[in-house]
Amino acid sequence: MKNEKIMLAERPKGLPTKDTFRFENEDIKEPSEGEILLKTLYISVDPYMRSRMNDKESYVPPFKLDEPLNGGIIARVEKSKNDAFQEGDVVTGRLPWQRYTTTNGDGLQKIDESIAPLTAYLGVLGLTGLTAYFGLLHIGEPKENETVVVSGAAGAVGMVVGQIAKLKGARVVGIAGSKQKIDYLKEELNFDYVINYKEENVLASLKEACPNGVDVYFDNVGGSISDDVLSLINKFARIPICGQISQYNKEEAEHVPRLQPLLLTKSALMKGFIVGDYADGFKEAVKELGKWVRDGKVKYEENIVEGFENVPHAFLGLFSGVNLGKQLVKVAE
Amino acid sequence: MKNEKIMLAERPKGLPTKDTFRFENEDIKEPSEGEILLKTLYISVDPYMRSRMNDKESYVPPFKLDEPLNGGIIARVEKSKNDAFQEGDVVTGRLPWQRYTTTNGDGLQKIDESIAPLTAYLGVLGLTGLTAYFGLLHIGEPKENETVVVSGAAGAVGMVVGQIAKLKGARVVGIAGSKQKIDYLKEELNFDYVINYKEENVLASLKEACPNGVDVYFDNVGGSISDDVLSLINKFARIPICGQISQYNKEEAEHVPRLQPLLLTKSALMKGFIVGDYADGFKEAVKELGKWVRDGKVKYEENIVEGFENVPHAFLGLFSGVNLGKQLVKVAE
Repeated sequence: MKNEKIMLAERPKGLPTKDTFRFENEDIKEPSEGEILLKTLYISVDPYMRSRMNDKESYVPPFKLDEPLNGGIIARVEKSKNDAFQEGDVVTGRLPWQRYTTTNGDGLQKIDESIAPLTAYLGVLGLTGLTAYFGLLHIGEPKENETVVVSGAAGAVGMVVGQIAKLKGARVVGIAGSKQKIDYLKEELNFDYVINYKEENVLASLKEACPNGVDVYFDNVGGSISDDVLSLINKFARIPICGQISQYNKEEAEHVPRLQPLLLTKSALMKGFIVGDYADGFKEAVKELGKWVRDGKVKYEENIVEGFENVPHAFLGLFSGVNLGKQLVKVAE
Repeated sequence: MKNEKIMLAERPKGLPTKDTFRFENEDIKEPSEGEILLKTLYISVDPYMRSRMNDKESYVPPFKLDEPLNGGIIARVEKSKNDAFQEGDVVTGRLPWQRYTTTNGDGLQKIDESIAPLTAYLGVLGLTGLTAYFGLLHIGEPKENETVVVSGAAGAVGMVVGQIAKLKGARVVGIAGSKQKIDYLKEELNFDYVINYKEENVLASLKEACPNGVDVYFDNVGGSISDDVLSLINKFARIPICGQISQYNKEEAEHVPRLQPLLLTKSALMKGFIVGDYADGFKEAVKELGKWVRDGKVKYEENIVEGFENVPHAFLGLFSGVNLGKQLVKVAE
């Protein structure tokens, strides 16, 4: 039986394509003493991975050329020569995009399907949910009756942001890009107002949606949508910068007026973050998120593509704006 | 005896000129029951006043056309029909640019020349010192051995920022615009490194001055100097936005690449503020600042022009970059 892996074949300029990736085969490496052999079950594809394809320092180190890409994965232990793991254990962690991986197990967490479905550990109870949790609660700090705007609202992070903001008593305005997403956010997640940025004048709709201005803007997308939201912020607004998906594929940065005069006028706070900044709080946060999920207060949505061969396709789909919720690829049962 | 006052004659486009101001005479208004008559002793002129000359909402409301300008003033009670004040009391507060003012005394604080010279209450122990104190300690939060960069370093705020940062054990790099200022900051205030932005390549000098990157950037000036500093920030950098003097007189904003991707990459925090945001903490802060001043740990510098007729000239001088420290006008003994 052969192993198969997905390599970074070239660094994309602008939008990645199929040529960004290359499939390679190799023999499966038998585990030595202290190692385990993992079979990949689910692979998470995420927008931030686009930044890692560039050859420059970003918030996570760049992927290496001609090496396998990597990210959040759920895998099952097939063979164990490490006392900490037993055959049949299911684990999650940052692992290479391979059908099989031989590792010493560092950095992996065991997960329990009796608490939540496996895939939740790559989404609402994984780094995605934690990203929403920490960015919103530790930077955004929404208060009752404040107005929270979230862009990329139907994405895996955005929908958790909106629901937590509702739990905190805020008025939630989402920005998303299709009728299906708009309907879902309004009807399933009870967002107070949702704007379709592909069909509406975003600034005009925001003015209608936010008659009392914007207190928190959770920014997943950047670009002109964010410029519009920022033009409506209130004094003491808080702006967690979580992602800039609209900018990742641009070869040259757009030029806009400097932001500092606005932040000064509004005594506003803007802060970038990645979820790893809050690693000390993960355990407590997963407990709280897990309770909200069990109580039905935080719902989540997954979009699962089947087949290892479809990982590149699923990744590329992130940039077409069609996904509702978390994008995963199922590699094996 | 006539009163004299300085009115906003027209809203400047770009740099203010003498035509921005108009002197007017009127009779002095005798105090009614509950009022006091004040004689102005010192007038503070500050860069932020330029923003108030525009007819648009800023962090403080705009000055009104054909009304007296106003700001921080020290005055002596000449007549009192208010039990809270006695003839001879010296007070400070926000008052109109007039030789005499009749007021009910709301918002005025009595000051005591036995603790510090009167003028200190418009500078290091007034809103200027408090601006440095809160912006640096509550947003910048410098830690031992971190690198703190301050622009407008020889201004009234900047020199207090640098000295407090030194007190906290940070390495302090100042940016200023003349040899006299550079020498003062190095020799009198013991800044670790000072850059003359008028004579040096700022980015190159910053790289030399900050071999370990920038942890805190206290921004008084905005514009390209700030762009250069921001290009060197470290992960988790904090950037208090205090002023943007380089931008106040621009009729059109310059366009630059958006800031959000940088803040994201660096998990950096940027926050605008005005000193009034921290009003609840003024009393405690003045106590601490006062102790530092008495102990010689925080020094200050004043530039005092004489004569009410020279107030516009002193204000205009703020934008020529010649002032070292706090700019005041002495109106009466």
